[in-house]
Amino acid sequence: MPGGTPQTLRPFLWRAANLYPDREVVARTAGGITRYDYGEMADRTARLAGALDDAGLVGERVGTFCWNHHRHFETYFGAPGVGAQLHTINPLLPDEHIQYIVEDAADGLLFVDPSLAEKLASAYDPDAFTSVEQFVVMGESVPEIPFGPVTDYESFIEGYATDYDWPSLSGDRPAGLCYTSGTTGKPKGVEYTQRMLWAHTMALQTPQGIPVADDDVVMPVVPMFHVNAWGMPYAMTAGGAKHVYPGPAPEPADLAALIEEEGVTLAAGVPTVWIGLLEYVEDNDIDLSTLDRLVVGGAAAPRSLFEGFDRHGVDLVHAWGMTETSPVGTVAHLKSDLEDADAETRIEKRLTQGLVVPGLEFRVVDDEGTEVPWDGEAFGELLVRGPWVTTEYFARPDASEESFEGDWLRTGDIVTVDGDGYVKVVDRTKDVVKSGGEWISSQELENTVMTHEDVIEAAVIGVPHERWQERPVAVVVPAEGADLETLAAECADLVRAEYPDWWVPDDFLRIEEIPRTATGKFDKKRLRERFGADAVEGEAPAEAAPEAAE
Amino acid sequence: MPGGTPQTLRPFLWRAANLYPDREVVARTAGGITRYDYGEMADRTARLAGALDDAGLVGERVGTFCWNHHRHFETYFGAPGVGAQLHTINPLLPDEHIQYIVEDAADGLLFVDPSLAEKLASAYDPDAFTSVEQFVVMGESVPEIPFGPVTDYESFIEGYATDYDWPSLSGDRPAGLCYTSGTTGKPKGVEYTQRMLWAHTMALQTPQGIPVADDDVVMPVVPMFHVNAWGMPYAMTAGGAKHVYPGPAPEPADLAALIEEEGVTLAAGVPTVWIGLLEYVEDNDIDLSTLDRLVVGGAAAPRSLFEGFDRHGVDLVHAWGMTETSPVGTVAHLKSDLEDADAETRIEKRLTQGLVVPGLEFRVVDDEGTEVPWDGEAFGELLVRGPWVTTEYFARPDASEESFEGDWLRTGDIVTVDGDGYVKVVDRTKDVVKSGGEWISSQELENTVMTHEDVIEAAVIGVPHERWQERPVAVVVPAEGADLETLAAECADLVRAEYPDWWVPDDFLRIEEIPRTATGKFDKKRLRERFGADAVEGEAPAEAAPEAAE
Repeated sequence: MPGGTPQTLRPFLWRAANLYPDREVVARTAGGITRYDYGEMADRTARLAGALDDAGLVGERVGTFCWNHHRHFETYFGAPGVGAQLHTINPLLPDEHIQYIVEDAADGLLFVDPSLAEKLASAYDPDAFTSVEQFVVMGESVPEIPFGPVTDYESFIEGYATDYDWPSLSGDRPAGLCYTSGTTGKPKGVEYTQRMLWAHTMALQTPQGIPVADDDVVMPVVPMFHVNAWGMPYAMTAGGAKHVYPGPAPEPADLAALIEEEGVTLAAGVPTVWIGLLEYVEDNDIDLSTLDRLVVGGAAAPRSLFEGFDRHGVDLVHAWGMTETSPVGTVAHLKSDLEDADAETRIEKRLTQGLVVPGLEFRVVDDEGTEVPWDGEAFGELLVRGPWVTTEYFARPDASEESFEGDWLRTGDIVTVDGDGYVKVVDRTKDVVKSGGEWISSQELENTVMTHEDVIEAAVIGVPHERWQERPVAVVVPAEGADLETLAAECADLVRAEYPDWWVPDDFLRIEEIPRTATGKFDKKRLRERFGADAVEGEAPAEAAPEAAE
Repeated sequence: MPGGTPQTLRPFLWRAANLYPDREVVARTAGGITRYDYGEMADRTARLAGALDDAGLVGERVGTFCWNHHRHFETYFGAPGVGAQLHTINPLLPDEHIQYIVEDAADGLLFVDPSLAEKLASAYDPDAFTSVEQFVVMGESVPEIPFGPVTDYESFIEGYATDYDWPSLSGDRPAGLCYTSGTTGKPKGVEYTQRMLWAHTMALQTPQGIPVADDDVVMPVVPMFHVNAWGMPYAMTAGGAKHVYPGPAPEPADLAALIEEEGVTLAAGVPTVWIGLLEYVEDNDIDLSTLDRLVVGGAAAPRSLFEGFDRHGVDLVHAWGMTETSPVGTVAHLKSDLEDADAETRIEKRLTQGLVVPGLEFRVVDDEGTEVPWDGEAFGELLVRGPWVTTEYFARPDASEESFEGDWLRTGDIVTVDGDGYVKVVDRTKDVVKSGGEWISSQELENTVMTHEDVIEAAVIGVPHERWQERPVAVVVPAEGADLETLAAECADLVRAEYPDWWVPDDFLRIEEIPRTATGKFDKKRLRERFGADAVEGEAPAEAAPEAAE
């Protein structure tokens, strides 16, 4: 049968090592900046491969519990390269989720950062960690750790040859594994085959993705435990770019220093990171002249962030994706015929999640499964399919059943699509308020309410309603001294100015701080538990009582 | 099994039709310029799909015998989209090769251009064309044609729906077929699966390939019967670019007019085409201001061509590939750290075939299969493998046997690789002169000899030699009035100035015109037949006798 050789990660490493042996890989570590080149990286990755192979991990899963640094990057090619499956674990998850994940994945070995050893110790449960035969600390020495056997990374790879004979693997070979940090139920695993990672890398490299050239200096701030740092390390290697890894828990000052000192041209991270950087940059004398573009995803970035970086000549680019999509699905590049559009149009397009990258297909459907028009108004759930979109969850036929429709992934995102094809996430299926047969976007309401200067933050949830099925309720953190009743009236006016009357929340309830999930999103599940049906009746539940406005 | 949905061409068409319904597809035809948009293109392609489906061609092969135009482009998506295999036939081949190819592929239907109907009639052989149940003429009416049944394209697709339900195909499904125009033996078929075409499209779209963005206006001058016009039509569609097809037998004036009138930013073709365009541009007042880059491949372009287009602010970019590699394997982009190199270094890099694109791997090996160093000096055969490199020939186990080594394709190209990784083709394995255990590049000798102002063109062949196994002999077309003996002595000096003494050809023989293959390359097989072993002995064979210099 014709068909070319399988799509695997191997050629990307091979190309980098041979075409760009001197290109740098830089990492911020607890001990300062570590710096080496692709040549040494390839040698060390080969030694890691030898060690993993020797430890019997071919065909097994290898877990990482690490921040962004050069050693973690070595596992990105080393583990899949020998035919193992790299399982990146989110150390910010609750202990019980970590236990569940390690047990579910049956990781044979765990790489762990020294700074995360304590967290891992807290999650450590001998009954859940039975598969783990070895722990490797990502450093040159081993701290006090209440589990084992344990060795340090440098000892682990020591003595192995620098010319590992990388096997020819099948494109179907599982190469990666990442669990969704679902706010509901158990985390669900998404497996990435060699082919999926290859395809995603190539898609990132298109002009419609987030292409990386050999003059780029790329800093993935998005954690390497979040869907392979959005696949950036693979694209950076394929493109021959310089790598800059920000290490454990980087502060804005650390990021600013790396940008200035290493000449970063492209970085990627969640809105919070860039909000912090922008504040820091505005307060300090930071040279961002090398920085060309910042990719932002994981959540919608506010307009002020786009405008803020525009002032510094840095192009903030929205991207959308999820664990199930490897992750990049859309990128908000301006179409060429919009480049001369008025400023308002341009920023509106940039504020969407963007245009689908080549290779994927999507549909947006209403409750009945009918496609909604691309008019920028009609809502529907986003369904997506393609070579780097999973078609099942790892060992979870129950979850797979409800999340897929044929070969389409039900993303759970409620979106509009405008006439140009820009996709805008307006809600999650579980958060959208279904009122009288119509959908109300909780996120759009939140954004409107949060434009009020006396609102620090606000979440909108749907609460059960006898007549309307659900009604929206806003939970707000008011500015100090603000009167909730006045605030509620003014916010209602703001909503009315933009949306139909029936979008106005039935209640505005005070809260000290909006609870968040492990990934920093509003935890609406907890809000719904706390501000249940009673809230609509004006009778706040006990916990919320003193804070309710009416 | 996890793995994403199959890689097929469908999403590229879907994206173009939905995101860029107004983007233009322009074609020069016998009747003038045809112009429509992606929306109409998608509608017509759906109608074509309906017609092909209805004609029972799903799972069959569909041949095209056409120049570059919009209807041919519609078959690029229409035929593979229904699950048929698009077989692009080179109308410049000898009749017996066309007969062989149609019979070998067992094409069920043939699309043929009106202007090529006569050529097809000449090649037509009822015994070879038994599989062909229908001929479709690429026009609105049917010329006088001595075969049938025949219909015109517009009638063929008429009445079919514009919303064909494109099936979900396997990535392994054969989608394309192209025969090599081998100068030795029967043409060999190379099949392209849906996955190979998908992968090649994505590879073209990387910064290291020939990326196309939505503000590009792309004109593939390379014929659409040559390895899918180097895959450009697929990349142009994936990227949302405007298409410009130059139609039947375009002259330099036609190309210049299309560039000026349609605002072409990127075009691709063989050296001859760009030599013609450059001459035309230098003699006429042509505005090339929109033209950003010209891709040149199929043969090495001369230095003067790079320098010529540099004067017009157009970046000529060398690329290398072959039918077996879908075709693009290397592209001669300047590495970022060479952008500030001296002019000579820069042009030397651009004169190579370039850097391997991400996703492929290669090796360069000598006679014993040992890898040669990357020093820009050592020769070896280029072996390549990857997702869009075939691993076999269509129905030719004999040819597959000798052309592959494991999963590596033996390209038959003799190359050097320099320290930066730039691959330079210096010969073909069958043309390289094997003298005393060493290899002499016939192409390098030709290039040197052709620098003599009295040499119009020159070919170098190896002829058998008792002691040295082979020795080089130059066959030259001298300028009018030039004395061959003097010329030979001067050319020998030119060779000695650059290469070891033993590289100097043993003979310089006169010829009126160097014979060429169907694709315009020197036909060295015929030269070797004509100027055989005797030439070295100084006794020219009868045919060459009056022209021999010594």
